[in-house]
Amino acid sequence: MSIWIDQLGECQKAASDADRYGDLHLGYAGARLFALSCFDIPVQPGFIIRAETCNYYHEHGTLPDEFETELKNSLQILEAKYSKTNIGKQLPLFLTSRASSRSRVAGVVSPIYHLGMNAENTRKIAQLMEPSTRKGYEASNDQKAAQQFMRFLYQFTENALDITPDILEDLFDEKRTELGYESDNDFSMDEVIAISKIYKEQLKSELGFDLPDDLFGQLRLAVISAIKSWMSRRAVMQRQIHEISDDEGLAVIVRAAAFADFDDMSGQAYLDTRNSLTGENKVEGGLGWNLVGEQSARTSRFPTSLGDDAEEACEKLIDIAPDLHARLTEIGKKAERFYGRCQRLGFIVQSGEAWVGDSFDLQLSAAAELKTNVDFVHEGILTNEQALCRIDPLSLEQIMHPSIRQETEREVIASGVPASPGAASGEIVFSSEDAIDAAREGRKTILVRMETSPEDVHGMQRTEGVLTIRGGMTSHAAVIARGMGRPCVCGAGNMRIDLANETLFASGRYLKKGDIITLDGAKGEVLLGEVAMEKATLSTEFQQLMSWADEARRMEVRTNAEMPSDTLAARQFGAEGIGLCRTEHMFFDESRILTMREMILSETEAGRRAALDKLLPMQRSDFIELFEAANGQPVTVRLLDPPLHEFLPKADEEIAHTAKAMGVDDIIVRRRIDELSEFNPMLGHRGCRLAISYPEITEMQARAILQAAIIAAKNTGAPVMPEIMVPLVALKKELDFVKERINSVAEDVMQEMDASVQYLVGTMIELPRAVIRADAIADSADFFSFGTNDMTQMMYGISRDDASPFLKTYRQKTIIDEDPFVTLDIEGVGELVKMAAELGRENHPDLKLGVCGEHGGDPVSVKFFDRIGLDYVSCSPFRVPIAKLAAAQASIEAGNSKKGG
Amino acid sequence: MSIWIDQLGECQKAASDADRYGDLHLGYAGARLFALSCFDIPVQPGFIIRAETCNYYHEHGTLPDEFETELKNSLQILEAKYSKTNIGKQLPLFLTSRASSRSRVAGVVSPIYHLGMNAENTRKIAQLMEPSTRKGYEASNDQKAAQQFMRFLYQFTENALDITPDILEDLFDEKRTELGYESDNDFSMDEVIAISKIYKEQLKSELGFDLPDDLFGQLRLAVISAIKSWMSRRAVMQRQIHEISDDEGLAVIVRAAAFADFDDMSGQAYLDTRNSLTGENKVEGGLGWNLVGEQSARTSRFPTSLGDDAEEACEKLIDIAPDLHARLTEIGKKAERFYGRCQRLGFIVQSGEAWVGDSFDLQLSAAAELKTNVDFVHEGILTNEQALCRIDPLSLEQIMHPSIRQETEREVIASGVPASPGAASGEIVFSSEDAIDAAREGRKTILVRMETSPEDVHGMQRTEGVLTIRGGMTSHAAVIARGMGRPCVCGAGNMRIDLANETLFASGRYLKKGDIITLDGAKGEVLLGEVAMEKATLSTEFQQLMSWADEARRMEVRTNAEMPSDTLAARQFGAEGIGLCRTEHMFFDESRILTMREMILSETEAGRRAALDKLLPMQRSDFIELFEAANGQPVTVRLLDPPLHEFLPKADEEIAHTAKAMGVDDIIVRRRIDELSEFNPMLGHRGCRLAISYPEITEMQARAILQAAIIAAKNTGAPVMPEIMVPLVALKKELDFVKERINSVAEDVMQEMDASVQYLVGTMIELPRAVIRADAIADSADFFSFGTNDMTQMMYGISRDDASPFLKTYRQKTIIDEDPFVTLDIEGVGELVKMAAELGRENHPDLKLGVCGEHGGDPVSVKFFDRIGLDYVSCSPFRVPIAKLAAAQASIEAGNSKKGG
Repeated sequence: MSIWIDQLGECQKAASDADRYGDLHLGYAGARLFALSCFDIPVQPGFIIRAETCNYYHEHGTLPDEFETELKNSLQILEAKYSKTNIGKQLPLFLTSRASSRSRVAGVVSPIYHLGMNAENTRKIAQLMEPSTRKGYEASNDQKAAQQFMRFLYQFTENALDITPDILEDLFDEKRTELGYESDNDFSMDEVIAISKIYKEQLKSELGFDLPDDLFGQLRLAVISAIKSWMSRRAVMQRQIHEISDDEGLAVIVRAAAFADFDDMSGQAYLDTRNSLTGENKVEGGLGWNLVGEQSARTSRFPTSLGDDAEEACEKLIDIAPDLHARLTEIGKKAERFYGRCQRLGFIVQSGEAWVGDSFDLQLSAAAELKTNVDFVHEGILTNEQALCRIDPLSLEQIMHPSIRQETEREVIASGVPASPGAASGEIVFSSEDAIDAAREGRKTILVRMETSPEDVHGMQRTEGVLTIRGGMTSHAAVIARGMGRPCVCGAGNMRIDLANETLFASGRYLKKGDIITLDGAKGEVLLGEVAMEKATLSTEFQQLMSWADEARRMEVRTNAEMPSDTLAARQFGAEGIGLCRTEHMFFDESRILTMREMILSETEAGRRAALDKLLPMQRSDFIELFEAANGQPVTVRLLDPPLHEFLPKADEEIAHTAKAMGVDDIIVRRRIDELSEFNPMLGHRGCRLAISYPEITEMQARAILQAAIIAAKNTGAPVMPEIMVPLVALKKELDFVKERINSVAEDVMQEMDASVQYLVGTMIELPRAVIRADAIADSADFFSFGTNDMTQMMYGISRDDASPFLKTYRQKTIIDEDPFVTLDIEGVGELVKMAAELGRENHPDLKLGVCGEHGGDPVSVKFFDRIGLDYVSCSPFRVPIAKLAAAQASIEAGNSKKGG
Repeated sequence: MSIWIDQLGECQKAASDADRYGDLHLGYAGARLFALSCFDIPVQPGFIIRAETCNYYHEHGTLPDEFETELKNSLQILEAKYSKTNIGKQLPLFLTSRASSRSRVAGVVSPIYHLGMNAENTRKIAQLMEPSTRKGYEASNDQKAAQQFMRFLYQFTENALDITPDILEDLFDEKRTELGYESDNDFSMDEVIAISKIYKEQLKSELGFDLPDDLFGQLRLAVISAIKSWMSRRAVMQRQIHEISDDEGLAVIVRAAAFADFDDMSGQAYLDTRNSLTGENKVEGGLGWNLVGEQSARTSRFPTSLGDDAEEACEKLIDIAPDLHARLTEIGKKAERFYGRCQRLGFIVQSGEAWVGDSFDLQLSAAAELKTNVDFVHEGILTNEQALCRIDPLSLEQIMHPSIRQETEREVIASGVPASPGAASGEIVFSSEDAIDAAREGRKTILVRMETSPEDVHGMQRTEGVLTIRGGMTSHAAVIARGMGRPCVCGAGNMRIDLANETLFASGRYLKKGDIITLDGAKGEVLLGEVAMEKATLSTEFQQLMSWADEARRMEVRTNAEMPSDTLAARQFGAEGIGLCRTEHMFFDESRILTMREMILSETEAGRRAALDKLLPMQRSDFIELFEAANGQPVTVRLLDPPLHEFLPKADEEIAHTAKAMGVDDIIVRRRIDELSEFNPMLGHRGCRLAISYPEITEMQARAILQAAIIAAKNTGAPVMPEIMVPLVALKKELDFVKERINSVAEDVMQEMDASVQYLVGTMIELPRAVIRADAIADSADFFSFGTNDMTQMMYGISRDDASPFLKTYRQKTIIDEDPFVTLDIEGVGELVKMAAELGRENHPDLKLGVCGEHGGDPVSVKFFDRIGLDYVSCSPFRVPIAKLAAAQASIEAGNSKKGG
């Protein structure tokens, strides 16, 4: 039934990793104490009643027959053990009982300290204690013993008898009034003992409860109460909220109790083995002297710092009790080394002797997590592969973006989806034009839109942060903002925009254009006014970790980038090329959009070609800059993808402006807008369908790419081999059609420029139709790049722009666990990616395979892509380190890290 | 090198079905003549130079070495054979040379008649012929021989020498002027012979061409010219247009030639073995007496009818030459029996003796095709399975819908996609309301819309035909119109609607509301004014064919229907249940739409439930009627599928009306419309996602269905087992969630009504995600119904509403052959249907599998569904016979027809 905490025979078992985290049915705290005790760390003797007993009770409605006998036996053994300890030679045995469940959810009974307390033992400790002499906290032994007994009576009533202590309170109140005392602290030991006797009688006569005097009797009730509390309403509700099974059960820890106010060298301490914010290797913590009971150390009466460089005001343990300081530090480091993680330990100290009462892994900031794990490698505690696997790739995001200073006061006026991390303050603007104008004048803005469209991209580049009322993690705003490293909050549906009056209504407040707000992209919150920020610097530990990741990973990591600046940023983060350059973004610049519109409005091929001729030099110079920034790294350029209507004006004013610039009547522009409008643009005239309807667009783009490749190669001396990507292919014939055009342009360009250029032609695999016939398509493709965003849309029949409302319901009703646009739906969409990879390689064994969807920056998805053998992932610049770390973890997990061989 | 037409040793081979259609390299006409000659049908002796010779020539640039020798040998054998025939005893051998390719494409050389003609032979035939005495066509032998020679000179020049006959024309022109003749008919034989000599000399001196006098010399040039013509520019272009390979090659038929103006019992005839429009079993045709050469019988000089009941004005062959009539009829029937198909035969008749010169399968109207094939079974020519396989299932469509009378004059003002067959005339209306109003007053209308939406369904029911400017074969208008059997023309993009002025602009003409137009749904044409129609009646042959199909097929055929009237219509066409009842159509009725809107506009579940309580009795009575109409046949009811915004008003006026009826402000209605609007409704909040967000809708529908099932079963005495279908499932958990709600409602209903009802719960399989995990989903489903429309959309990433423009381009550029929304993309979408069927049955062997998409009525698709083992297809009522026939053909082809065992 029970397990001994200090029974050495079990220690070898406890030392295994599995048991370190409670895989025995001892609960989290129990397993911890058990493991520490085995590792020669001082823990008071005791035993643990395993969760099986609890489960038996709730299954059968009664305890096992042998319960009382075993509990008695265990107690006898513990008494014998205790009597041999230093403290046991001096004091009678007192016990602590404490519930210990694996998942540490709330709702079960609180601990009871000093079981075994009664009139006789109260007198005994009063004789053995020493009075407290600490200035301002002076107390006689009589007072201290009285307090201990009083506290015990309350605790036992509430936690073992499971009733409210009304009777006890009434008794103390009456007596206090009678004696004219100011507080309960004034009671003498005899007075408390006298009241305890009356209380016992009243409990019996009024409620029929026994309050036993003997240790076993008290222990028995405490254990049963703890076991019962597992199915209390509060505990059951808490578990339902956290989706924890009732079957887990509750263990009960029983161990010897010490007194934190025994003498002036008694107290309670907590110790962090390193700084939890920075990860600096210095112990920190506090010690509260002379505490009654083992209450939280936070409420220490007389604080002493455990840190060496604590503030001046606070006395330092190292100065006043160097031996104790050394002892606690030694225990802390031992536990840290044992777990290989930073620890927070709770100690009880009696007469200078310390025992660990509680321990758990210290919650670290992302920066601290990174630093300590790297330090652990340097200290020989972890291998670098272990360190790599320890760090949550997503936590790197916090390190890379500026953030709101922690202690800052926040007035949250709205919240939405935390779509792109980082924080930014600025004036509210409602249009990209205003954002651009403000940027010209050096003013910082936050762009607030219902949703964004490609027309807003230039505005987004000039603003500090983006806030939308609609859309989720994969809306246009979110994707683009992440790509640019701009903080973004999406889907803040509790706000209202009134564009006519240029006001924003949020939390009962009207904000006007120009008012300052702050976005916290990491939390998805909108704050009023400007808030203090802190900027990220990439530490040497970060660089170290990345270099280990580079050694370990098999998969390449590229970036999605259109601008030379993005490309350079991504290369600083270690990107190994561009996996997706979306050429359409290049057409939204003010100087180009009109020419683009001219092309779209042309009724004839000749007209389109004339406009394209004007666009060619612009595209070419874009590509030259991009290739030069990539400096020899591979660059995948996707041909024009969005439907043409996205390039046309929407507002009346802009239509008029376009018509005027084009020298045509408004009606012509409107008619074409009408003709091109679509019910479901996502399923419309886009991708390679454009290339097939208007081959001249492809020809212009291919020409620009290939000319730029030749020129950039000359300029930099590094060879450029562009990878031209055909989007939205469903049929081999589509790819063949477009490829033929590209090849023919390539021949012309090489002849015209009298230079040669190598290039690849591949395709996005994003339509299920392409997957099913990936074998055929692979015949015509040099590479496949999986567009897992669109593939998810097609697989589920869900538009990511419209999905937020019902995906939220789906998560609430537990129909899905994860947003499939954030983490790849491995068993659905993943299955298709795998199928396409297999079919493709069947026909074309050296087919290059990559991912350029948002999932390329999601760690869980990245690991899946590694497992199925893809060659690379591509993600937004700020996601590159995340993808690299995830790729390294995948390689290590698969046992195929470059280092592991 | 050559094959003898009348060589009997080859006949057995020719009798095999393969050779009947030209699988020897004899080309179509050659194979025909060869087969007929073997089957004891009179064909003039000859031989055929196989296509191999042609291929050799074009591969090597020269003829095979043995060409001349073999041609000479063949000619000698033919001469010997010919000299033994009746005609050969009298006349020298003349030959016809004629190109014969398998695919009968144009562009090759025309035939040359009467090779062997020269001065001497002209004189010879002038002696042997008899003068023409037929009134008005009198001619002497001299004149007739002169004409023959003159015609030969022209033909040979053009078709053997391959030059324009300028020199010859000049010579005749000069001579005619010199002699003062009015026309070329006035030339005497001697004059023609004299000119021929000058011509020969000029040919030689001016162009270096020989015009040989001897038969072999002429034949040799004629054959070489025919062979060369295979690669002429015209021929190559024609083949490119029709995608015919050059490798096919050309055979050359050489056979003895007769004279159609030899005497008054000579001429040329064609004979149809049955009436090509009605299929009536009576020969028809015409005979032209005294023709010079074997020109088309259509240009007969002196027509005689071969039909027994020809018009009075025309003399009948049976009256004037009963033996010849009998002979031609006998030959025709023999050929028909040989081919098992109605024939058109071309005859040449010389002195009362007749030979077949040409033969092909008679082009029949759909009705005739049906009748003759059924008759062939009764006549023992075909088995009923052969007859079933002979008929193109799609041809039945023409039989079932009224159509425009054939001879009617048509003023076509616009054309679009032939979206739903049949024809209808009516006043132009531009809104469903106007259509409904007009119907109340008994006026017929044609509803003209940019495109239709579910709001138009009630209007479409009250109109005669539907015309849209946008959309293709599977647009909303097309699908609904086909379902209703209404003629429909979609995507008539060359029209413009001006709604403000209620005018329609087409072909330079403004039409106003109220103007009459006619739709020809079979041709996709819009005609001006009212046009005469003919109504279809279902013939006894149709009924006979359907009963054979019922015997043969394995798959069930159900119908897609919402209304009792549709259900009854479909049952008349032989539907075996309802495979898809779209419940949303029931909500668009004027009496319901407001309640539906009330539900959608409710902010709370309680509000929605209140509205749903009002909808419940309406839904229930719909289902009672439907179940009663189905009379015990299975009925699959799909739960609400479209996004809710489809039910909300769009026009300002209607928004105001709705707001008023709801007792709220316009702004409330507008806000909800805003909230619900979606970028890509096809990928939006629809299908089972609605059931998960608003389970109360599902509960109401399930309640209505199950209550109705119990009531209808009581009313009719026939048990009702509704099949409840959950749309747009991607995940097993979605289906489980909805199924749980249905089951719980079912328990309540049965308890409340104290009756039991059996029901199935299944799902649409339309999302690729569902296919990949069909094994898991099958655990929770009683049936799968494949929604191949949506599946095609998701597989291709194409919205059927937006696809017309680029699918047209795709067909033009031969990227696709068929619109995948019309005929299932078997190697893409089909592969997925197969995968889901297999995965589903793996886990659930008796899973019922059906198709309810548009493809369920497409014969090619139906056959595929049979091959992969689906249990049923469901299609619009008018498509039921088509699907049944296709299913029967599939069973027969697979050898698993019920009859075949």
